[in-house]
Amino acid sequence: MKKVYLFQEGKREMGAVLGNKGAQLCEMSRMGIPVPPGFVITTKTCVEYLRKKRLPKPLKNEISQALEVLERQTGKKFGDAKNPLLVSVRSGAPISMPGMMDTILNIGLTDEMVEHIARNRKQQKWIYDCYRRFIQMFSDVVLGVPREEFERELARIKKREGVEKDYELSPKALKEVIGRYSKILKKHGVTIPPTPEEQLYAAIVSVFESWNTPRAKKYREINNIPPDLGTGVVVQAMVYGNKNERSGTGVVFTRNPANGKKEMYGEYLMYAQGEDIVSGARTPHPIHHLKEELPSIYTQLRKICRKVEHHFKDMQDMEFTIQDGTLYILQTRTGKRTAAAAIKIAVDMVKEKLITKKEALLRVKTSDIEKMLHPIIDPKADYTVIAHGLNASPGAASGKVIFDTDKAAAAGKQGQKVILVREETTPDDIHGVAYSQGVLTTRGGMTSHAAVVARGMGKPCVVGCEAIRIHRNKKQCSIGSIIIREGDIITIDGSTGEVIKGEVPLIPPRYTAATKQLLSWADEVKKLGVRANASTPEGAQLARELGAKGIGLCRTERMFNASDRLPIMREMILAQTRKERKKALEKLLPLQKNDFKKILRIMESLPVTIRLLDIPLHEFLPSHEELLQEINYLRDFKAVMKAMQEFPHILHLLDPKLEEYAEPIERFLNEMKKKRYQDVDEKLLEEKTAILAKVRSLEEVNPMLGHRGVRLGITYPEIYEMQIRAIYEASAELIKEGVDIHPEIMVPQVCTAQELKWVFRRVRKIAREVEHKYGIKIPIKFGTMIEVVRACMRAGKLAEVAEFFSFGTNDLSQATFSFSREDAENKFLPLYTKRGILQDNPFAILDQKGVGRLMMITIEWGRKTRPDLKIGVCGEQGGEPSSIHFCHKIGIDYVSCSPFRVAVARLAAAQAALEN
Amino acid sequence: MKKVYLFQEGKREMGAVLGNKGAQLCEMSRMGIPVPPGFVITTKTCVEYLRKKRLPKPLKNEISQALEVLERQTGKKFGDAKNPLLVSVRSGAPISMPGMMDTILNIGLTDEMVEHIARNRKQQKWIYDCYRRFIQMFSDVVLGVPREEFERELARIKKREGVEKDYELSPKALKEVIGRYSKILKKHGVTIPPTPEEQLYAAIVSVFESWNTPRAKKYREINNIPPDLGTGVVVQAMVYGNKNERSGTGVVFTRNPANGKKEMYGEYLMYAQGEDIVSGARTPHPIHHLKEELPSIYTQLRKICRKVEHHFKDMQDMEFTIQDGTLYILQTRTGKRTAAAAIKIAVDMVKEKLITKKEALLRVKTSDIEKMLHPIIDPKADYTVIAHGLNASPGAASGKVIFDTDKAAAAGKQGQKVILVREETTPDDIHGVAYSQGVLTTRGGMTSHAAVVARGMGKPCVVGCEAIRIHRNKKQCSIGSIIIREGDIITIDGSTGEVIKGEVPLIPPRYTAATKQLLSWADEVKKLGVRANASTPEGAQLARELGAKGIGLCRTERMFNASDRLPIMREMILAQTRKERKKALEKLLPLQKNDFKKILRIMESLPVTIRLLDIPLHEFLPSHEELLQEINYLRDFKAVMKAMQEFPHILHLLDPKLEEYAEPIERFLNEMKKKRYQDVDEKLLEEKTAILAKVRSLEEVNPMLGHRGVRLGITYPEIYEMQIRAIYEASAELIKEGVDIHPEIMVPQVCTAQELKWVFRRVRKIAREVEHKYGIKIPIKFGTMIEVVRACMRAGKLAEVAEFFSFGTNDLSQATFSFSREDAENKFLPLYTKRGILQDNPFAILDQKGVGRLMMITIEWGRKTRPDLKIGVCGEQGGEPSSIHFCHKIGIDYVSCSPFRVAVARLAAAQAALEN
Repeated sequence: MKKVYLFQEGKREMGAVLGNKGAQLCEMSRMGIPVPPGFVITTKTCVEYLRKKRLPKPLKNEISQALEVLERQTGKKFGDAKNPLLVSVRSGAPISMPGMMDTILNIGLTDEMVEHIARNRKQQKWIYDCYRRFIQMFSDVVLGVPREEFERELARIKKREGVEKDYELSPKALKEVIGRYSKILKKHGVTIPPTPEEQLYAAIVSVFESWNTPRAKKYREINNIPPDLGTGVVVQAMVYGNKNERSGTGVVFTRNPANGKKEMYGEYLMYAQGEDIVSGARTPHPIHHLKEELPSIYTQLRKICRKVEHHFKDMQDMEFTIQDGTLYILQTRTGKRTAAAAIKIAVDMVKEKLITKKEALLRVKTSDIEKMLHPIIDPKADYTVIAHGLNASPGAASGKVIFDTDKAAAAGKQGQKVILVREETTPDDIHGVAYSQGVLTTRGGMTSHAAVVARGMGKPCVVGCEAIRIHRNKKQCSIGSIIIREGDIITIDGSTGEVIKGEVPLIPPRYTAATKQLLSWADEVKKLGVRANASTPEGAQLARELGAKGIGLCRTERMFNASDRLPIMREMILAQTRKERKKALEKLLPLQKNDFKKILRIMESLPVTIRLLDIPLHEFLPSHEELLQEINYLRDFKAVMKAMQEFPHILHLLDPKLEEYAEPIERFLNEMKKKRYQDVDEKLLEEKTAILAKVRSLEEVNPMLGHRGVRLGITYPEIYEMQIRAIYEASAELIKEGVDIHPEIMVPQVCTAQELKWVFRRVRKIAREVEHKYGIKIPIKFGTMIEVVRACMRAGKLAEVAEFFSFGTNDLSQATFSFSREDAENKFLPLYTKRGILQDNPFAILDQKGVGRLMMITIEWGRKTRPDLKIGVCGEQGGEPSSIHFCHKIGIDYVSCSPFRVAVARLAAAQAALEN
Repeated sequence: MKKVYLFQEGKREMGAVLGNKGAQLCEMSRMGIPVPPGFVITTKTCVEYLRKKRLPKPLKNEISQALEVLERQTGKKFGDAKNPLLVSVRSGAPISMPGMMDTILNIGLTDEMVEHIARNRKQQKWIYDCYRRFIQMFSDVVLGVPREEFERELARIKKREGVEKDYELSPKALKEVIGRYSKILKKHGVTIPPTPEEQLYAAIVSVFESWNTPRAKKYREINNIPPDLGTGVVVQAMVYGNKNERSGTGVVFTRNPANGKKEMYGEYLMYAQGEDIVSGARTPHPIHHLKEELPSIYTQLRKICRKVEHHFKDMQDMEFTIQDGTLYILQTRTGKRTAAAAIKIAVDMVKEKLITKKEALLRVKTSDIEKMLHPIIDPKADYTVIAHGLNASPGAASGKVIFDTDKAAAAGKQGQKVILVREETTPDDIHGVAYSQGVLTTRGGMTSHAAVVARGMGKPCVVGCEAIRIHRNKKQCSIGSIIIREGDIITIDGSTGEVIKGEVPLIPPRYTAATKQLLSWADEVKKLGVRANASTPEGAQLARELGAKGIGLCRTERMFNASDRLPIMREMILAQTRKERKKALEKLLPLQKNDFKKILRIMESLPVTIRLLDIPLHEFLPSHEELLQEINYLRDFKAVMKAMQEFPHILHLLDPKLEEYAEPIERFLNEMKKKRYQDVDEKLLEEKTAILAKVRSLEEVNPMLGHRGVRLGITYPEIYEMQIRAIYEASAELIKEGVDIHPEIMVPQVCTAQELKWVFRRVRKIAREVEHKYGIKIPIKFGTMIEVVRACMRAGKLAEVAEFFSFGTNDLSQATFSFSREDAENKFLPLYTKRGILQDNPFAILDQKGVGRLMMITIEWGRKTRPDLKIGVCGEQGGEPSSIHFCHKIGIDYVSCSPFRVAVARLAAAQAALEN
């Protein structure tokens, strides 16, 4: 089995054998891109090594042969002090994975060789710099000596020498650095292998071993990546950005990864090697500077960018090195990008005929669409910017400043809003970023770790905000004279780079043109309808604007909670007789009717599913505690007033000590007056007491399973009758106006066909009355929520009456798991997902094995009775992509979700249709 | 279509055509029993009448022809004053039904005929008595004149004449009675048809019409009896128990309907007609008196009893009349009996080879077995009997005395325990009897209405307790000088006839020998296993005695609630660290182990399914309210003590008005001292506050769906580990002793296979440890409750780990309906069953269409994975007969119910096996 492939032997399609990095390098070589020669050790070899724990002899032979080819191609010789071939070693798995070894540069030197080369004055500085970089990297990555120890020594000598940048150090100083580095190694009792071959082997072994770091393993576990893929190893001839002033290194994206514009984007540093850019230690120049500094290189780079992008049909992220005026490309990969960029690039590439619409739809992730929905600062808001940084990842966020990653993660997990503020971030900070609302760093550029990670996660991020100084020990930071303590609130705007003290109002964004274009393509291919949950005219307006093709859930109870309706609603609940109750309901009728008219008019030509009252009555009343407190206040007040009347002089005449009580009583009275209990109103007290009695009578042990939905409708028929009449009258009036409406009446919490029939009889009766009154036909569909397990079991029977089903997956999940969402999410659910007992929170992502199975049965039985039964989903999971895929697969007709999730749902539905 | 059948033309099998009463009379005629001749009008004729609302001509013709036959058979003539044939008319539906017309006697007389006959002195008294009876009955039943008005007149004349019994009235007085009756009719503006034919037709119409009384209709609705069955009408030649002193009438059961003994049982009255016995107006003689009074009649009656019983193969309830020394049988039907009698008779008849075991098992109703479980007075109790009546229906009961039927029903519905106390009862009192614990009457015999109804319902009943006088207007009754007011508690013992003031301790009964015999036959045929739910050694003992073949649900939380354990349990819950928690659990371990040892030993050779902790932790802590009150008390107490110290003289020195407060403060302090807060214990206050904080942190919005069962087990693994260890160690020690045990570990609230695997890993680990420690193998089965819907959906997966399933149908029903039982039964469920939206309360009777369907799916999927999967039911419905039938049908292996329901379950299981 061939273990080593020269770049010219491999190709793009060999990712599984060579790893992605290696395969891409091979492909570029074949394309004639100026890539320094190199070879790739296959992923199988890695697996073999991990089993046997030693490099097999044939591998060594193949490496030697490959090196010989490299020597021929470069005209240099590995281990030869006169004309040394140095190489870099990099890992490259078929799937990129955090926690794996990245790169060791400048392999192939020994003390003796360096001394020999350094005799040439022109090469002195370069070779010392290469060697100290080699020692530092090798020791860190292979030998496990902390990097900071080397950096400390380097900083010490730079300070002594009075220079700021590494490349300003004299050869002599660099030599001293190397000497100090040797001492560090000695202190740790480790040595670098004495020959270049052994260095190379050690580096290769180190790459192999890094396949099994805990972080890599965990990542594979979470992402379901098989543990036996293995990683490839790329060995490549070095080119030197640190050769001289006409040398340098950089990173370039073929398009702008922040906004997707078709322009080169990136940064570079002269007199530097790759890690100088990534580490953020020096702030690099933006790529367009290169146009002035090295115009021909710039032009060449541009051409390469176009060629490579055109070849790979996606935006590329490339590393390049300029060695003494010659350009080399060291690596290319699909570039990470913001959501906005991902969408714009996909849409642009369709227009450029690089990819098809289908490819564009499958390439954009639903999370990209989701991230587009990050809020922005309200343009009407007033605020003062205290600092500016680089706009590394768009969107705005407010939160408490936290300087420590673990602390930020912990606070974020508890639901606190946190902004992680650091000098710079490393892979160890990822969990802190994940649980923060946004990230702010004082150092680093647009491709620094923080920027890349935040973009990937769609988190707002501002980097390189150098005006900020962090004082870790004091747990604060300062911007000039402004002090911000840990826990203070700040706002960052990753689209502008602004940092603002305090909280600023944020508003949801509107879609970009590209997003609209992409979603319109999505609508062309998707099979699943996407509706929105909306209960107000404003919500309906928004839903329509965001592309919802109807309202799948219009909650009528929301309409009762408005301040002008709540008192009437309470009047209705407190009514002692049916007559009193009807009187209150008569007052509500025109209000509801008006709401329905507005909503139906806005949703002209689209369906609107109106759910009859669902929530239990006690939710319209004040809480037990609240009432009790008020009543106690009133009683106390009464008692005090009485005491004051009976003993008007007692407080100041009788005993000096008693005066102590004057003040609290005074305070109490003042408080009461503030609450406008100017005098004790006996009637008020009675009223409150009556409400309390009602609240008590309505109290339930398990409100989730309580007296609600259709159960309430059956107990107090006049409530549903009012609602049904309001819907019919609203519809009648709109039809007369010529508006094309599609209302649907939906009954909640149904568990038996009898309930549905009971409501249906009333619907038919009222329909006849209203149709007679207005002299027209009013076609309104009638259906049921499926959110009670028994309804699933009776689907066949329910479908005899219902023209449509709508799965209420929130309640259905609660009932299926016997989890109370409020309790579960606070108590045991986090532990359940942590211990892997549940993979996901079933209230966020539909549980396909349990709830999904139940849904499949329901659909089967329901459609057996009524083959054209329309079936929707109106739970929260209706806006979650994997749930949407499942809904598509099991034959759901439409999902309905919050207006803000409509776009995500549209794309997910399109992807489901394309993939199935 | 033949509309009229002579007795000699019909037979037993023609019940559907002739009604039961008619068919039985025909059969007896054919058997040669001395039945007065008669004929039956068919049920179809009734249906026809009800459609056309008139008697068809052909019917009248057939009746005339039949009457002619009767005239020939009796040698009398209908409507002939010289030798008149009188007839009785009775209803007789294929299914007996309350609310239908019963009987009109003595039809066939007119004023003129009576006057003519009365000329014969010997017949004077008899004919007047017949005529006044006829007027009274006909007016009441056909014309709707209140019966009381007639009785009032009769009583007035009896008083005037100074006689007590009706038959003591002179012919003259009787004639006067008839005169007064005529006035009553005149007052009401009604007349009796002037000819015997018209009287007969009116009576027949009246029977037909009574098919549609509201009560009969309602009864049919409830019992699913088709409305078009119709009733038959029996017309029979009169024989006269009121003829002279050698005449009489009576009721006889072929066996004792109270206890089933093989002896004639019944009562009779000389010089009387049938209604005199049923009405309870005169207290009749027990049947054995007849042996002395009319020995030959007695012997003849005995022979007839044996013959009829042998023929019908069931105990018979017969009416007889003695006319001038000749015995006639007027009617026979299957006799109503107490549960005890039903069982004894069935068992005896098997022994007598009258019926088969299978017939016996199907003939005894599960409700009979249930009624056998009525409590008896604790033989150890001390009590004083204040009165004695007849022991009409066995069992003892305590409750509040209530004299009004509606009031008794209302109180009973609210769950109050009520004893209905009446002079006598009528069909209008049935609902009062149904909702009472027992019935006490001051009049009537063993076959009076109260006695019959109470026996049918299995309610304790004492009748004819003449020492009691009811003073309705005062709402009290008296027994000599003892006054009992409405609302006072009394106890009655229907097995002895004792009446006791106040409450007496009751204990559950033991099975009779016959019950044991019947149940042993049940065990022979049933396929379904019957286990009991028992959580203590006492419970286990009882379960075993009552015939449970194992424990299907041993709730371990019950063991923690004992007073010696609760403090340790609370210590465990309040523990701040895992270590503290473990320490508390270590104290619980030996206690649990000991419980398990006791239970397992008692259940030797039978399976015991032990469920790990299920209930949420807060159930072991005091309630929020309770704690808050205690804390407030402590705080108030502290404040008052402080005030008293600061102002020791204030209360009595400063202002006389202030002294007002001295008393309440005194009272408060005394109360506090009673509660033993001698001084404010700061530590106690702190402790209570800490518990309150914990209670608050454990509070849940929907506890039914909360942090309980396996969720708790996973959150605090040490709890389940302790329980599992206790089970294994208890088992190990018993195995070493040579006890044959079959423990099973069951996990509650499981919703995913991962949970079960998580627990199973711990079980395996502890099993290995304990097996190693004791040096033996400990075979314990491992299984899961199925009470969460998701578990049903994952049955196939769960069966990979679980060796058995046990449906927790209580929780599963709650989850399937999304009903919280506590809330539903108090709020909307009564309305739901009333309106027919649900047929039954699903928490009492398994919902086959919903929950049952889910169970069927679960069983199918579970057994697909593990064909020998053992499946049980341990919800309350496991002891309910129709649910047991369903369980049998769907392949459940065993049901587990409360020990007291075990017998019911055994019989139901046998019946299920016999019927399927």
